[in-house]
Amino acid sequence: MTYNAIDLNDRFEQFNETWSPKVIARLNDYEIKLVRLDGEFVWHSHQETDELFLVLSGKLTIQLRDGAVQLSAGQLYVVPRGVEHCPITEAGEVRAMLIEPAGVVNTGEAGGALTAKHDDSLS
Amino acid sequence: MTYNAIDLNDRFEQFNETWSPKVIARLNDYEIKLVRLDGEFVWHSHQETDELFLVLSGKLTIQLRDGAVQLSAGQLYVVPRGVEHCPITEAGEVRAMLIEPAGVVNTGEAGGALTAKHDDSLS
Repeated sequence: MTYNAIDLNDRFEQFNETWSPKVIARLNDYEIKLVRLDGEFVWHSHQETDELFLVLSGKLTIQLRDGAVQLSAGQLYVVPRGVEHCPITEAGEVRAMLIEPAGVVNTGEAGGALTAKHDDSLS
Repeated sequence: MTYNAIDLNDRFEQFNETWSPKVIARLNDYEIKLVRLDGEFVWHSHQETDELFLVLSGKLTIQLRDGAVQLSAGQLYVVPRGVEHCPITEAGEVRAMLIEPAGVVNTGEAGGALTAKHDDSLS
């Protein structure tokens, strides 16, 4: 029997929306998501969980209230639970992988227009 | 304040052993690990957890009892809990990222000479 790997680039070709994470795999009660980022998101935090960002292409800045972290392809950062953050791209679109428990909402406690529906149509 | 991203290539330059996962980050009670793979591992399973493999360079085959999955750079696969598997590389060294709960032993229930000590010296 042949089992299929999940190809990150193939999955990215299946959507164009930004700030709308797509679940591509599950790991126990965690979800692996891909997301396109372009522009500035909203300040928010996740009170119940850490959140992992792995940048696959482009340059991402995660603004924190007392500083920032810069991420290029092949670099990751884990935003600790409860820490306010606001992703921003300053040089075009960024492709990133997110890992967090199932049920986490992209805008955390902030809500608002950028809140994405849970989308596991690519998993 | 400047926060530092974790650069995967930088971390790989800090070790050469194969089959010896290095913790580079934590996400709640999960660990993000880097590992160099070369040759054939041992058949084993993890009764308590799924295990994520993301290949960063090289070509990896994860043998399963009823088939196999082939992984190249930018491809991932989640081995379900309890499923026996045996990674093998047939074209040189593979660099991979693993994600699994803290405390998972690389050889699972199989044990043996390839069992690695928990190593978080790079985190």
